[in-house]
Amino acid sequence: MSPNVSANNPADVVIGVDFGTLSGRAVVVRVADGAELASAVHDFEHGVVTETLPGSGVALAPDTALQVPADYRAVLRQAVPKALAASGVPAERVIGIGTDFTASTFLPVTADGTPLCELPEFADRPHAYPKLWKHHAAQPEADDVNAVAEERGESWLARYGGRISAEWEFPKALQVLREDPVVYDRAERFIEAADWIVWQLCGSENRNACVAGYKGIHQDGAWPSREYLAALDPRFTDFVTDKLAHPLSRLGERAGGLTRAAAALTGLPEGTAVAVGNVDAHTTAAAARTVEPGQMLAIMGTSTCHVLNAVEFAEVPGMCGAVRDGIVTGAWGYEAGQSGVGDIFGWFADGFAPSEYVSEAAGLGITVHELLSRKVADQPVGAHGLVALDWHNGNRSVLVDHGLSGVVAGMTLATRPEEIYRALIEATAFGTRTILDAFQNSGVPVDGFTVAGGLKRNDLVLRTYADVLNRPLHVADSDQGPALGAAIHAAVAAGSYPDVPTASEAMGSVTRDAVLPDPARAAGYDDLYAIYTDLHDHFGRGGTEALHRLRRIRDENHTR
Amino acid sequence: MSPNVSANNPADVVIGVDFGTLSGRAVVVRVADGAELASAVHDFEHGVVTETLPGSGVALAPDTALQVPADYRAVLRQAVPKALAASGVPAERVIGIGTDFTASTFLPVTADGTPLCELPEFADRPHAYPKLWKHHAAQPEADDVNAVAEERGESWLARYGGRISAEWEFPKALQVLREDPVVYDRAERFIEAADWIVWQLCGSENRNACVAGYKGIHQDGAWPSREYLAALDPRFTDFVTDKLAHPLSRLGERAGGLTRAAAALTGLPEGTAVAVGNVDAHTTAAAARTVEPGQMLAIMGTSTCHVLNAVEFAEVPGMCGAVRDGIVTGAWGYEAGQSGVGDIFGWFADGFAPSEYVSEAAGLGITVHELLSRKVADQPVGAHGLVALDWHNGNRSVLVDHGLSGVVAGMTLATRPEEIYRALIEATAFGTRTILDAFQNSGVPVDGFTVAGGLKRNDLVLRTYADVLNRPLHVADSDQGPALGAAIHAAVAAGSYPDVPTASEAMGSVTRDAVLPDPARAAGYDDLYAIYTDLHDHFGRGGTEALHRLRRIRDENHTR
Repeated sequence: MSPNVSANNPADVVIGVDFGTLSGRAVVVRVADGAELASAVHDFEHGVVTETLPGSGVALAPDTALQVPADYRAVLRQAVPKALAASGVPAERVIGIGTDFTASTFLPVTADGTPLCELPEFADRPHAYPKLWKHHAAQPEADDVNAVAEERGESWLARYGGRISAEWEFPKALQVLREDPVVYDRAERFIEAADWIVWQLCGSENRNACVAGYKGIHQDGAWPSREYLAALDPRFTDFVTDKLAHPLSRLGERAGGLTRAAAALTGLPEGTAVAVGNVDAHTTAAAARTVEPGQMLAIMGTSTCHVLNAVEFAEVPGMCGAVRDGIVTGAWGYEAGQSGVGDIFGWFADGFAPSEYVSEAAGLGITVHELLSRKVADQPVGAHGLVALDWHNGNRSVLVDHGLSGVVAGMTLATRPEEIYRALIEATAFGTRTILDAFQNSGVPVDGFTVAGGLKRNDLVLRTYADVLNRPLHVADSDQGPALGAAIHAAVAAGSYPDVPTASEAMGSVTRDAVLPDPARAAGYDDLYAIYTDLHDHFGRGGTEALHRLRRIRDENHTR
Repeated sequence: MSPNVSANNPADVVIGVDFGTLSGRAVVVRVADGAELASAVHDFEHGVVTETLPGSGVALAPDTALQVPADYRAVLRQAVPKALAASGVPAERVIGIGTDFTASTFLPVTADGTPLCELPEFADRPHAYPKLWKHHAAQPEADDVNAVAEERGESWLARYGGRISAEWEFPKALQVLREDPVVYDRAERFIEAADWIVWQLCGSENRNACVAGYKGIHQDGAWPSREYLAALDPRFTDFVTDKLAHPLSRLGERAGGLTRAAAALTGLPEGTAVAVGNVDAHTTAAAARTVEPGQMLAIMGTSTCHVLNAVEFAEVPGMCGAVRDGIVTGAWGYEAGQSGVGDIFGWFADGFAPSEYVSEAAGLGITVHELLSRKVADQPVGAHGLVALDWHNGNRSVLVDHGLSGVVAGMTLATRPEEIYRALIEATAFGTRTILDAFQNSGVPVDGFTVAGGLKRNDLVLRTYADVLNRPLHVADSDQGPALGAAIHAAVAAGSYPDVPTASEAMGSVTRDAVLPDPARAAGYDDLYAIYTDLHDHFGRGGTEALHRLRRIRDENHTR
């Protein structure tokens, strides 16, 4: 069903802008069918700020990860007009702009949205800058957030798999309060960059339901109580009411029209519809046509993020969050994740491929990844005798334990590098199956499984996942899923479609049943998965404290 | 004390001949002080015969490993005169010759010692050839040997850690009986190559107490009973009485004088004293001066063999064997082993060192092993966060389970190759500590620990072992320990010394306290050893069947 397309001008386009960790990307998308006409990337000048503040050179504490808001504006100024020019589409045919952002990337601002770090008197204070999603210095605050919530029996804790991450809003704001109360006091608002960028575009504060639910702690229409906040820190009592609370917008709504200043910045017409803010993984669901309940989307790259809609709420152990209207309005949106996926394959291929493989790959004009895959792709399931635990970067779902680490079992003197490489790929597939099992065992059906992200181009990975999960894989067609998803939300905000599901159906694109499982291989993987689960539960659920003890010994002796 | 040296001509020499897996080595040794004057190596023309019989081209069954007796004679004919010529010592000053051999390397012969494979009518029958120690095709027979022994409660089984190896005499002979009864019937004797070579030298059958105990099943003055053999197979009832039994000679005794034929073969004087046969690891104890009770010798190379004398017998779980008079007369000789040591380091360095390390090592003019060691030698204990199980080639002692395989735990995205390399070295040291603990917990004291074999030149290995064992390491000086040990036994057989301990004291050579433990590192290793033991017992003692299940799945799917 695409009821509104005929009402649209077939030349109309929308622009999706994806703000990543190191760069921003603008994509010009045709409203009628989602065709991606052109795109442009702009790298952040300051990237991720981890050592010293730019300009002042103030040194930063370990695990700090900041950004510079001017870099975000530069994407609007550079990438948007560049993409539009490349598309050949005249600016007046742009009817909407949508954005997606990393999250929780969270910053203190004044009442008019000025980042505190842009006030001269705060330029040398680290806590005045946006804290990037992977800022991990608020772990003590996260521990307190969780401890007090458990103590008080806060009902919202179950919506986050029992654990608020140090990457999220409340620990980050609490860290500012504790470490630089001057900044905290001066901040009239704390806001997600996902919402701040919308403020820049349409000139007024706007907050979306997605980040409020997944990265803030907004559940059942309410934020954490003043009593809870006071128990955390008396000075934090009014955090929500003073600095956070704002009516929440639904995803795909129009936040406003492009201001004259933003029009000048982007080269788009003043008044162009601006969609409310959103998060990269969540917009991708629209691009991959996985907005219907039961359709799980796995955005697989260095790590994997899983998003899934369901009609009902259920408590799923180890999920990152369940948020009503969090992905599309009217459904419960669930999120889960695996902390290391492509990163693990890269770690092995870069660090452990022998020199003759590197030469062989160079001679064939292929990557070491491709060579390793070729050498082992046709080996029968289990012939390597290996099973691995994919915890080289800790475990997000379902164990929520970043003190875990990787294990490889079954090596002999005949074990070859490509066999370990394949065992690592299989391990991440077993990790995904563990997550699917957790959802299904909790009563949340997973009817379809769609892959997006960089690993969707890796044949061995896809085939392994199809066989391990024993289900067909659908594969998102776009290589720019988040930006396409943001553009789809822009089309809804512009009124071209009545809602995100309808727009997704018309503009999103997926190859269904792109990879089918092989019954014999799937049966073989059932046996290996049973062994994976045996080790997973032994190492991850208290059968042994070996990995935590190794981590502690490592940390105590680390000199690097 | 060296009471007899003064009675000897200071120019007297003895020759030790070490028969290895691929070659034989002759060393000319001065009787007075054990100085190694010259040596020569002769490679076996046929090496290890695993595919087809030489000459006839008859194909061999999987896991078969045979040798050709003419290759052994060639060592006597080539290496002995060559070494002597290189030493510049006239033949008349050679007062004795001693040998050591791999074991159990076992062959069927006629009543005059002719190998059956040298009879033209048997040249095309595989079972007429010597079965090398690593012939593994008699596993079904070994299983029966063990099952029947357990069923009948044979008391000797405990002397072998509860398990007779497929590599030993009885399974090998039973395989001949079952698969080629014609060869079995024609064989008037079955004999260890260690004893057969002595027969070649002195012209009469002679059998030594060491192989009879460790590789045969000779305990408390008796062989397995006829009732036991009949239960195994009625046709096997008279195996011992007809084909094996012979008075046993003590180690270091004179088996006889060199025959005229053997004198012609070797260029040595007729009548030269010939020492009784012996095994490579066991003769090394004399070379390393570890013949006193409580002095454990570890011969560390691709694998490790441990030999130790004790005053009393005790049942030590997982030892390979305990034999009265098995290493030196008058003591209980114990043997234990680790199936993979240097082989594991080589597997990793050859297969998993990245290309930039290979280039860096080449640029520095060092091996990849040395580079990996340098990169990680100074890292504090435990800073890599890893622990490994050293079972890449199965586990000999103390678990006696070749269905086990290697494990590495604790890897993160920051883990570097040299850290895994070090964890593998540590794992073998933890394996050694597990063996020492088993001896000491069983009431067999281990007062000293001496290293021989190729790994004694590896500084990182030695330092790691000293720290993990938290005791000083003594290091054998000779690089040709087995041959020197054989020469020491020759000196005793020639009457230059009253017994092996006295000769060992005069001719053997060791650097005591060559490597001392560092108390702080030793304490750090205590923590890691506790984690190793946790994983060792979980994976190796039935906590999980994961490794056996992986092995079974691998074997079922193996196509290579």
